[in-house]
Amino acid sequence: MITREGCLALDDSDPLAHLRDEFLLPEGVVYLDGNSLGPLSTRVADRIDRVVRSEWGEGLIRSWNAAGWIDLPRQVGDKIGRLVGAEPGTIVACDSTSVNLFKAVAAAVSAAEQRAALLTDAGNFPTDIYVMRTVAERSGLELRVAAPDALIEAITSDVGLVAVTQVDYRTGRRHDMGAVNAAARRHGVLTVWDLAHSAGAFPVDLSGTGSDYAVGCGYKYLNGGPGAPGFIYVSPSQQASFRNPITAWFGHVAPFDFDLEFRPAPGIDRARVGTSHVISLAGLDAALDIFEHVHLGEVEAKSQSLTQVFIELCEEMGLDVVTPREFVWRGSQVSLRHPDAYPIVQALISQGVIGDFRAPDIARFGFAPLYLRHADIFDAAQTLADIMERGTWRDPRFSLRQAVT
Amino acid sequence: MITREGCLALDDSDPLAHLRDEFLLPEGVVYLDGNSLGPLSTRVADRIDRVVRSEWGEGLIRSWNAAGWIDLPRQVGDKIGRLVGAEPGTIVACDSTSVNLFKAVAAAVSAAEQRAALLTDAGNFPTDIYVMRTVAERSGLELRVAAPDALIEAITSDVGLVAVTQVDYRTGRRHDMGAVNAAARRHGVLTVWDLAHSAGAFPVDLSGTGSDYAVGCGYKYLNGGPGAPGFIYVSPSQQASFRNPITAWFGHVAPFDFDLEFRPAPGIDRARVGTSHVISLAGLDAALDIFEHVHLGEVEAKSQSLTQVFIELCEEMGLDVVTPREFVWRGSQVSLRHPDAYPIVQALISQGVIGDFRAPDIARFGFAPLYLRHADIFDAAQTLADIMERGTWRDPRFSLRQAVT
Repeated sequence: MITREGCLALDDSDPLAHLRDEFLLPEGVVYLDGNSLGPLSTRVADRIDRVVRSEWGEGLIRSWNAAGWIDLPRQVGDKIGRLVGAEPGTIVACDSTSVNLFKAVAAAVSAAEQRAALLTDAGNFPTDIYVMRTVAERSGLELRVAAPDALIEAITSDVGLVAVTQVDYRTGRRHDMGAVNAAARRHGVLTVWDLAHSAGAFPVDLSGTGSDYAVGCGYKYLNGGPGAPGFIYVSPSQQASFRNPITAWFGHVAPFDFDLEFRPAPGIDRARVGTSHVISLAGLDAALDIFEHVHLGEVEAKSQSLTQVFIELCEEMGLDVVTPREFVWRGSQVSLRHPDAYPIVQALISQGVIGDFRAPDIARFGFAPLYLRHADIFDAAQTLADIMERGTWRDPRFSLRQAVT
Repeated sequence: MITREGCLALDDSDPLAHLRDEFLLPEGVVYLDGNSLGPLSTRVADRIDRVVRSEWGEGLIRSWNAAGWIDLPRQVGDKIGRLVGAEPGTIVACDSTSVNLFKAVAAAVSAAEQRAALLTDAGNFPTDIYVMRTVAERSGLELRVAAPDALIEAITSDVGLVAVTQVDYRTGRRHDMGAVNAAARRHGVLTVWDLAHSAGAFPVDLSGTGSDYAVGCGYKYLNGGPGAPGFIYVSPSQQASFRNPITAWFGHVAPFDFDLEFRPAPGIDRARVGTSHVISLAGLDAALDIFEHVHLGEVEAKSQSLTQVFIELCEEMGLDVVTPREFVWRGSQVSLRHPDAYPIVQALISQGVIGDFRAPDIARFGFAPLYLRHADIFDAAQTLADIMERGTWRDPRFSLRQAVT
């Protein structure tokens, strides 16, 4: 039986507790949507202010050199690398996650031996499936969409590449990266991982498990701000053959030579395209510094503990928890299935508990280990219990659909 | 003979003079690089501060609806539309210019009748040529690169699309958009315009001249900040057949339905890809408000007058001006050719006159009509004359190459 006192005790012994002070969380809010948009931190607010007023305002164009803007994609990439098990020089932060996925999938198809199909699973984020289908059609390949549980068996020697999101954006189900990569290796299949719901939430071991390509998001668990650039990983063994489908000046070996012939940069820079989104990228750079001295094992342990508390409290309420009970099979997220998930989430938001809805029937809650407390989770669950008991969510105003759900 | 007094008189009668107060230009700088990175304005600094601290910091995920983040790409697109002669609902602001160019060229190739070649000119920005070559190779088409002066004659009925930058990034030479579009129409050829050095510098008439697609940059004459999103225009007649090569959720008819089938949005939204770069996009939105009550004919007249003053002063010095003398043939830019253009530009920068160098031998100066004064141009030319006379630029420190030139 979980009690508020028990949660407070967990918070007292939490080695990450001090990190909450980094964040500017509004009063009266329990923020369980850091998996959609991480919160603002003091470091990021200050850094953006400096980039805008001083580096841009005073330094103007000179800041490309003087303020190191030119180095940001690699610098940010290396900071992300520590969180996802990637060696320095294998990640750049740039573009949106969707654009990066397109680059990775198209490059992987170029690099793959000629085979019949691309493979994904039905739990993948829809964008990833759209991108794969378009690239597959263009290349005359079949797109196979396996059930998430049947992914590994679907990795056969007529598949050129397998691309999946490690943590299912709806259910929170997590793939075993090592097992998928091992199966892919056995059949000579390339792998593309979408780490949108992984990076910053728990340790990932891209390199140790032998991943080929990966992409991820800067504005979820990395807290880079709305629309912060995403990132792309290309393993050392794939870099030399990496063919970026969008050949542009910042992927060129010498952008400022203004050659008319495209010659790709030698390393990970060839995965870049146009001018960096400097302001957002600087914000993401500052946000990553919060992770600098954090032990990733502690992040993982807290993710487990926060999600476990919420799962147990939801089970006590008799709610339909669709997220796997065993920690190794879930991300830092708990999802509930309910036909009225939409108004339930709206009712929660009206009472300061912010989660989100994913069509058609999922109420989704993210548990970011850096700033959430066990007591917050307890309080959020109490609010949820109260809403369910009173039927608060039946108020018609909670059913009004908004543009962004 | 141009005098400082004459310049001051021009400034006294400048109907745009008051706009200079919008900008936070550093003391002691004459900024002739607004064609690389426009300066900060008070509006933009304040808007970014509000987006970061209030909309993100306090509103968190709720700001997608409550602060209208979801509408920004269209809203900013329509503001740009007024500057480039595009109807509401034909432009979205998103991604980098390079990514947008890729989308436009790939979509145009899909829409074009099967023909033998794509056409561009040798004055196009290298990225544009790289993108076209990659798309052409993928489609089994030839890429023809005409001399800029021979572009119109090269538009023949075996060409599927012609894509050029309206203003040459090095020389400042401007294409006649009406004449190019008319030739394209005669031969059933689609047009893709890169407006990187046009939008905000002088009026453009995309719709009136019958352009099919266009892209442009948010951080040059539009003053959106370093790495601000670019934009993409798809004419009303091309929207229904527009096939975005990067199929992702924000180009979907219903992003939050999370369909596994991609169904493109009905209008210009189908040109979108991933999540908006909200902070930068909001900055660009605020920057565009400076243009709100500006008469574009006055912008054009001032562009002509500023560039004319600089050209005449450079000719008096005996410098090699490569920019066309007739205003209709040039952008808001003047370029000088000199074997030592690099150290000359560095020497100028050291004295507060900021222009830029473009390999191999171009010193390039941009003349943004919103904030420059004729007297600034006179002073900049005096500084240049002094540097040339004294040979100041021969100091070895001015020859040290930096990462970004």
